[in-house]
Amino acid sequence: MLPIITISREYGSGGHAIGEAVAKELGIPFYDSHIVDRVAEESGYAKDYISERGEYTSVLDQWFHSNIYSSTYLGSPQDQIFQIQSNIISEKAAMGPCVIVGRCADYILAQKGMETLNVFIHADIQSRQKRVEERNTGALSEPVEKILQKKDKGRKAYYKFYTDRTWGNYANYQLNLDSGYLGEKTCVDIIVSVARAKDCQ
Amino acid sequence: MLPIITISREYGSGGHAIGEAVAKELGIPFYDSHIVDRVAEESGYAKDYISERGEYTSVLDQWFHSNIYSSTYLGSPQDQIFQIQSNIISEKAAMGPCVIVGRCADYILAQKGMETLNVFIHADIQSRQKRVEERNTGALSEPVEKILQKKDKGRKAYYKFYTDRTWGNYANYQLNLDSGYLGEKTCVDIIVSVARAKDCQ
Repeated sequence: MLPIITISREYGSGGHAIGEAVAKELGIPFYDSHIVDRVAEESGYAKDYISERGEYTSVLDQWFHSNIYSSTYLGSPQDQIFQIQSNIISEKAAMGPCVIVGRCADYILAQKGMETLNVFIHADIQSRQKRVEERNTGALSEPVEKILQKKDKGRKAYYKFYTDRTWGNYANYQLNLDSGYLGEKTCVDIIVSVARAKDCQ
Repeated sequence: MLPIITISREYGSGGHAIGEAVAKELGIPFYDSHIVDRVAEESGYAKDYISERGEYTSVLDQWFHSNIYSSTYLGSPQDQIFQIQSNIISEKAAMGPCVIVGRCADYILAQKGMETLNVFIHADIQSRQKRVEERNTGALSEPVEKILQKKDKGRKAYYKFYTDRTWGNYANYQLNLDSGYLGEKTCVDIIVSVARAKDCQ
């Protein structure tokens, strides 16, 4: 059977596009913003809020978490989103092979005892800057280097907070690919061929 | 042109065999123990001593380095070996495409401004134990888990000491591959196809 594929990625490395192309080529579902839509339906939070709180965290969030929400019966909004998101990811994965981008899916599914093909996509700073500038046709709110730094820091902290693992650490992924050096197409080809090889085993 | 390929690897992950097969398939030279032979010729140290001091370091080595050798004109034996090894690696790489295993080759060649395809091979503990047990037909001096732990720790410390980088950190490699999950043949196929794609650019 084809594997469930999780894709973690540095901001601007093309991980979303690569995941989408892999899913298309393998003919399996692709989950990224679809998860945000479902979390919005189930939680009542706005989509933008979920996009931010479902993959990023900050020192301030963590302070609130430790000092305010820990003393209440309700978890923090971030905890609630993580919980709903985890349930949706588990539910989707239980339906069969698919590609899931971000949101600690590798960790969530490992906790459920599910075997997954975990991919991490990264790239040099120049390639990522170029990609972010190309997809944002309007003016950016901050210098692009600052955006990359902030997004990666937030994802890394979020991943650490919920998994107690280090984001990008090779031991947690079967493939770490540099999309700047390899190009998006080669990344897609590698993931597809590995998935097909697993399908034949 | 085909790239110069450097392979770093966890102990017992099959990195040596993978590198050798890649070199064979691409028809380019493969350097591993050959480097040890050359260092032995040029330095006068015994091969076993070089194998240990050319890829591994310990807290004791580092203590000697900081407290004894740093006050003399001569570097430590480890420093001398690193220097000779670096020269040989640079010399080999300057001759054209090849595969070099271990010995901080990725860092050494980057310092010389040479572009390389850097690969890191790792695997789960069970696959590595199995490989180490299979290639050691005699009795092992220590439990295999202990050997793996000690070797990786030594390689990691050596790499950090001479490069100030973190061994295995995804940012330093274009490909991090899990040979336990993928199998040696798939690792070879991926590296060969990436190298051939670069050859056509």
